Amino acid sequence: MTGQIDRTRRPFVIDEAVAILARTPATLDALLRGLPDGWIVAHEGGETWSPFDVIGHLIHGERTDWVPRARIILEHGEARAFDTFDRFAQFAVSKGRTLASLLDELAALRQKNLRELATLRLTDADLDRRGRHPELGVVTLRQHLATWVAHDLDHVVQISRVLAQQYSDEVGPWRAYLRIISGTQG
Amino acid sequence: MTGQIDRTRRPFVIDEAVAILARTPATLDALLRGLPDGWIVAHEGGETWSPFDVIGHLIHGERTDWVPRARIILEHGEARAFDTFDRFAQFAVSKGRTLASLLDELAALRQKNLRELATLRLTDADLDRRGRHPELGVVTLRQHLATWVAHDLDHVVQISRVLAQQYSDEVGPWRAYLRIISGTQG
Repeated sequence: MTGQIDRTRRPFVIDEAVAILARTPATLDALLRGLPDGWIVAHEGGETWSPFDVIGHLIHGERTDWVPRARIILEHGEARAFDTFDRFAQFAVSKGRTLASLLDELAALRQKNLRELATLRLTDADLDRRGRHPELGVVTLRQHLATWVAHDLDHVVQISRVLAQQYSDEVGPWRAYLRIISGTQG
Repeated sequence: MTGQIDRTRRPFVIDEAVAILARTPATLDALLRGLPDGWIVAHEGGETWSPFDVIGHLIHGERTDWVPRARIILEHGEARAFDTFDRFAQFAVSKGRTLASLLDELAALRQKNLRELATLRLTDADLDRRGRHPELGVVTLRQHLATWVAHDLDHVVQISRVLAQQYSDEVGPWRAYLRIISGTQG
């Protein structure tokens, strides 16, 4: 493997993380804005979330999770555990709202939060600082920020999967070829 | 369940399918254009594809699969099997190209193909017409077009997953919470 670059893992670099974070609102906007309502409220059954629900969840994360928890790590270290994140807050956040207004709000909050992140001018030493997650225990600021990135992408996956699965029957025999529908890792 | 709408399945409606198909190039553009190269060439190991490879694959599909096969169904029915799709064509398609130029080409081809689809003015009877897939056997035009939609979304999932998995180690203990990384259906 000498001379080969590992293309399956990247070390956390703040500018590379921000490059993804800055793109998420526009990605979701391009995917969802103006879609027929049936797509927007589609879900995977039971208590699973629709694209509409996911956007509210991301907004709640911008307000209460990513930058606020980064500040708790920087200001209190392990002494103060993060506040618990409410995984159901979006149902109140989104009530009576349009998807368009939620997408606008997500974009504005993300922009503000990335500006705030930039003003922190985080060093490698800062990224090594430790905080305390109420369930996971000790975590570093680097892990927290890497999770912000992966969490965004996880929800892009979720929304795309919810949409595709609406056609689980309509694709007929192609079902076997589409990992997004067959349920194999996709 | 009386009075409840099934939010887990939608019947194929051409305008709703086109609403998704029209958004895919802009979605991928928002997600990928201008990202640092390390993200663009990231993959999942072995012969798996990078975001760069996937865009070439989607371009090849626009050229040889979706509208051309629809035409074969309409013109030849089951009498003529589809040409086999080359799942490796993107390595030639993309060689020496920039991601930006591939994204531009995908957008242009998709726009052209959706215009062509509109000119076919497909009726429900047309959507029931049958063709012959070289491996799957008899398929309908409706199934073919539903697969175009699901295939787009499957590759949005793939690209998002490839990107997120780059931080599999960096997220630390959050790994367990992120379906995109833990490998549970996501």
